[in-house]
Amino acid sequence: MEYVHGGDIYTHKGMTDFSVNLNPFGPGRAVVEAARKSMDQIGNYPDASCRKLKSALAKRLEVPAEHIICGNGAADLIFTAVLADCPRKALIPVPAFAEYEQALRATGCEICYYKKREATGFQLEEDFLDLLNEDIDMVFLCSPDNPTGKLIDRSMLWKILARCETYGIRMVLDECFIDFAENAATASILADTKRWRTLFILRSLTKMHAIPGIRIGYAVTSDMEFLEKMEQSRQPWSVSIPAQVAGMASLKEGMRVKRTCDFTNRERIWMENELNKLGITHYPSDANFILMRSGINLYEKLKKQKILIRDCSNYKGLGEGYYRVCMRQRGDNQKLIDALGEILYAGQGEF
Amino acid sequence: MEYVHGGDIYTHKGMTDFSVNLNPFGPGRAVVEAARKSMDQIGNYPDASCRKLKSALAKRLEVPAEHIICGNGAADLIFTAVLADCPRKALIPVPAFAEYEQALRATGCEICYYKKREATGFQLEEDFLDLLNEDIDMVFLCSPDNPTGKLIDRSMLWKILARCETYGIRMVLDECFIDFAENAATASILADTKRWRTLFILRSLTKMHAIPGIRIGYAVTSDMEFLEKMEQSRQPWSVSIPAQVAGMASLKEGMRVKRTCDFTNRERIWMENELNKLGITHYPSDANFILMRSGINLYEKLKKQKILIRDCSNYKGLGEGYYRVCMRQRGDNQKLIDALGEILYAGQGEF
Repeated sequence: MEYVHGGDIYTHKGMTDFSVNLNPFGPGRAVVEAARKSMDQIGNYPDASCRKLKSALAKRLEVPAEHIICGNGAADLIFTAVLADCPRKALIPVPAFAEYEQALRATGCEICYYKKREATGFQLEEDFLDLLNEDIDMVFLCSPDNPTGKLIDRSMLWKILARCETYGIRMVLDECFIDFAENAATASILADTKRWRTLFILRSLTKMHAIPGIRIGYAVTSDMEFLEKMEQSRQPWSVSIPAQVAGMASLKEGMRVKRTCDFTNRERIWMENELNKLGITHYPSDANFILMRSGINLYEKLKKQKILIRDCSNYKGLGEGYYRVCMRQRGDNQKLIDALGEILYAGQGEF
Repeated sequence: MEYVHGGDIYTHKGMTDFSVNLNPFGPGRAVVEAARKSMDQIGNYPDASCRKLKSALAKRLEVPAEHIICGNGAADLIFTAVLADCPRKALIPVPAFAEYEQALRATGCEICYYKKREATGFQLEEDFLDLLNEDIDMVFLCSPDNPTGKLIDRSMLWKILARCETYGIRMVLDECFIDFAENAATASILADTKRWRTLFILRSLTKMHAIPGIRIGYAVTSDMEFLEKMEQSRQPWSVSIPAQVAGMASLKEGMRVKRTCDFTNRERIWMENELNKLGITHYPSDANFILMRSGINLYEKLKKQKILIRDCSNYKGLGEGYYRVCMRQRGDNQKLIDALGEILYAGQGEF
């Protein structure tokens, strides 16, 4: 199987990696230390109910602990949710994270797509609502979106939610990058899970806390029957001890989250300006990454300069010529911009 | 959801735990140290292909690396295998590990059962073969068996395999406890995976290496199409970095495995003798645990003495009065025997 995701440093060794959307400062020291210390306990099974982690999350998110389910990374919960619900027909607005489709295909679900238009920066438009009807059992949304980084307006999310409630459609809202959005608290509709049972919000601790190696994510919904079904659709010990411990430690990184969010937003604005100067097409983002477009094969050209970016040609609804880059620290970001300048203007100018 | 497995030390605090079938010496120092050190890398995604671990396993098991799939514990692979195969009808000889049934139910598979008879010590008999016909898509076997610890004779396994090949039945053989069996090498039919595509052998590194907190297991089959389908039925990053690293380190514990196996076999024979002296019914085992039967509620009585055993009443095909205990170190094992003696002969004897 060809590996189609970002972050494959095992194939691409010694490269500066802009292909994964992680906190540019890496994992926090206290989180790593807590995970390291948890190694003293690996002779025990993990707590199958993740009791301590759920209780800490509940306090932090202001939702009941029994509305939370933890997973071996957020990606694990996508597959478990689909398996538990077994939808007959699902809707995905594309371009979108490939795992939604993969999970649906694994259960043989029929999938229909809503093609977001480039002209709107790949945003959902009003006509999307018409597709939410009695034929659909599940819809996947992502805010901030991947690969564009754009938030979905709350007013739009609420309109979608209303239709999902009307037609009994499970609304899976992937908020894995929400912590990178300015005003994350008002951009999220997590609080609405309490009132609306069809809403299922997916969160990751991997991105903001830069701990993808350890696999920890969670989801929130008030549909207790569905949560019970999810628990029945997977092994009891999905979440390892280091993952539970690192997850708890990451919840104490409030200040670090704030500083990172401020930093990546400033860097994104800086980079958007630099891309403008270079004349590279890019799309609106509220997160720590940018989708751009070029007629030049930037992926291959940058690879030669030991820079790894995400070639998005395998995203349904995109195609050749789309690339995604995350915000790293300024030195690296400058290096990327310089390399792009060289590629675009090679043979022109100084010669 | 009620938690029905062993090892729940989070509910039962401060107890001597005979309910999990782990290496009584705990995890090896080098394995813990390797996992601890791997925390330096958790800012990266795990290698989705587990290349290093697969290559080390291949060398050790003498099978091609491409015949191996790694998972978030062996239990994870049970669910993934079922989801990938989507059998219409499956066969489980009971009593059996509850996850086989749970995984099959999650995909809506019809399940039929073969009831192993107590009179034979819950072993498979010849009439089992008749059930393997064109109606069945998948069969689950366990050798050494859980909860009895009894190996299935290789001659019987080969007869089953022949029928599975004839009728195209996926033969899932759980060998998670094989390292605890004397002459594990001749008890296993791992080498037969090379020749027979329907054979799918499941292994855990959790039990012998006592690292259940870290979640690592693997499976071996030469059905490459099936492996590809399994990869498509789950997230790419199932196996965390500490799990991959600990897995590799555990493969260097050859001598420790041998010593542990010798020890648990000697202890089991000792404990079988002690149970005989106490007049407690128990069944033949080749592994590091024993299934026993009593009219007294041993689970509740021992709990009062801070001893946790596995109440097997929720195993299909068993019922009230069956209990499983693992071999711990001698001091603990003596404590268990003494406690059983007290429970059985309370009010009799010295008074």
